[in-house]
Amino acid sequence: MTDHGKPTIKDVARTAGMSIGTVSRVLNQHPSVTESSRGRVMEAVRALSYEPNLAAQSMRTRSKKAIGFMVNDIANPLFATISRHAETVFHEHGYALLLANSTGKASTEVDLVEQFFRHRTDAMLISLADETNSGLLKALKQVSIPLVVMDREPKGIAVDKVMTDHAQGMRQATEYLIRLGHRRIGLITADHRISPGRARVEGYVAAHKAAGVSVDPQLIRTRSLSAEFGLQEATSLLTAKDRPSALIAGGNQTLVGALRSIRHLGISVPDALSLVSCDNTELTELAGPPITVVWRDLGLVGRTAADLLLQRLSGEESPEPRRILLPTELLVRQSCGPPAA
Amino acid sequence: MTDHGKPTIKDVARTAGMSIGTVSRVLNQHPSVTESSRGRVMEAVRALSYEPNLAAQSMRTRSKKAIGFMVNDIANPLFATISRHAETVFHEHGYALLLANSTGKASTEVDLVEQFFRHRTDAMLISLADETNSGLLKALKQVSIPLVVMDREPKGIAVDKVMTDHAQGMRQATEYLIRLGHRRIGLITADHRISPGRARVEGYVAAHKAAGVSVDPQLIRTRSLSAEFGLQEATSLLTAKDRPSALIAGGNQTLVGALRSIRHLGISVPDALSLVSCDNTELTELAGPPITVVWRDLGLVGRTAADLLLQRLSGEESPEPRRILLPTELLVRQSCGPPAA
Repeated sequence: MTDHGKPTIKDVARTAGMSIGTVSRVLNQHPSVTESSRGRVMEAVRALSYEPNLAAQSMRTRSKKAIGFMVNDIANPLFATISRHAETVFHEHGYALLLANSTGKASTEVDLVEQFFRHRTDAMLISLADETNSGLLKALKQVSIPLVVMDREPKGIAVDKVMTDHAQGMRQATEYLIRLGHRRIGLITADHRISPGRARVEGYVAAHKAAGVSVDPQLIRTRSLSAEFGLQEATSLLTAKDRPSALIAGGNQTLVGALRSIRHLGISVPDALSLVSCDNTELTELAGPPITVVWRDLGLVGRTAADLLLQRLSGEESPEPRRILLPTELLVRQSCGPPAA
Repeated sequence: MTDHGKPTIKDVARTAGMSIGTVSRVLNQHPSVTESSRGRVMEAVRALSYEPNLAAQSMRTRSKKAIGFMVNDIANPLFATISRHAETVFHEHGYALLLANSTGKASTEVDLVEQFFRHRTDAMLISLADETNSGLLKALKQVSIPLVVMDREPKGIAVDKVMTDHAQGMRQATEYLIRLGHRRIGLITADHRISPGRARVEGYVAAHKAAGVSVDPQLIRTRSLSAEFGLQEATSLLTAKDRPSALIAGGNQTLVGALRSIRHLGISVPDALSLVSCDNTELTELAGPPITVVWRDLGLVGRTAADLLLQRLSGEESPEPRRILLPTELLVRQSCGPPAA
């Protein structure tokens, strides 16, 4: 027995006089187990009132040929595009994609991860609302099926990650605005709890330092990538006394909120305000004027994540979790100009 | 034996000397079957070389608590929004959503429907690329799990349908443009193979008839709801000699293509061209100028479809398949004006 009083698979093996491997095969209903082994193991299970943990429960289930895909909101074109490309790769390999929307709540993410794990999926491809949430980190530690995380670095969890170089992208965007003459540049993005939030602030600050331009912390607004936060902070920045001459929306939904604010306030882009966003969408391409963006290949994000998972599922073991960093590019359009005189 | 020479479940029952119910329970691995019944049935199955059909195969599988969701392309914001709301309802009832993109190919749709049916799902919520494709209609006829179709009326298939009143929506949009003084109104949309294509042309023609305005068939371009077709036909219409003074994009991706064409040709909206689209997206709300749309509640489409499926899954049998028709509304913005002089 462990200190906690709950019997473990080791206790079952000892009581049954069998190896842990045999106990595991019995619990997983492996076909090569003899009836007598099975009887001895199950007797020990009953005698100890042993409850298989999440891992064992998942192992009992045969392959469902399904991959869990958990995102904040599939209606966000970022996740819709990524899922589209990941699904295409999975489908080619005979896997279906189980979609779940967490609505950005850590508690919902815990529920979904556990559901995927216990009942349904062979592997998981996920984004996370908060890399630092202890309940979520605990749930992820229990996951023993392949797991790939997109654009997140959950603390202390050894998983494959498909990251984007948001720091470099934001540095390039900020340098571009500084070169145009802007000295007061607003930034609205996520906070330190997710990697893109940290990376974007880092790139923004690095560009200022490199150019010898001081950073006004009042111009950096970090909490969430939601349209609501984008609307609220754009309005706060653009109605302030010493308002910025340029604004960076650090997320595609941030842009939706920022554009609502800009329209409501009747501010003309780029004459009265230069505007940069992150990620290319139908909106940034076809808005009037078209909006300069920190571009990345969203299809490549989905395909790379899918490939990593399939490699793990095929049993190719890499000794270390992998971290793939995909590049960004500044896609210059008509939404920026010199600051208004 | 049937005329076709293939043994049926009736033949198995007769040969085994058991009821069809018992045969079905054996094939479905129902726990209450005795070993002797099981032996007799399986002997008859082998003697007749009986192959359970798709229906029986699906019945053998226990509930997966999963709903198949098949659309053309989840990256289309229309389907992303619908799926988001359907998934929320399913999740509340303990069902996961299995997502599949058909890319609009009927042959892929046949494959996906069969995969959903054989292996994975308790029910299906689908759109279709072509209501008239015989292979697809045949596959749908074999489906014996609950099925709800969105915005499609597959010929001769008795299924629940969640429809939108596109005819009424398009009639209202066309009447609005006629009232503004337009007499040459271009329409780009799907063709007769899907219900929204038929309905939109019907509404467009009805509005012309009611106003005593003759219809120039050259102005109606129907084939596909893709951005590619939108781009191609908008360019063809807008570069023609007697070009229309107003254009209706009969689909949200049609609009994406049309806007690319309009930008490329340097045409100013609404001064030189009035523009109406179908379905509200981030793009129609935030484009410059914001675009008048035939609006519908996409969340309601997803929730209604999910509710219909859950009612069928809970065993509430309605004697007749249901057809629910959801309304549209014309959401007037700044993309339309009187025809240029």
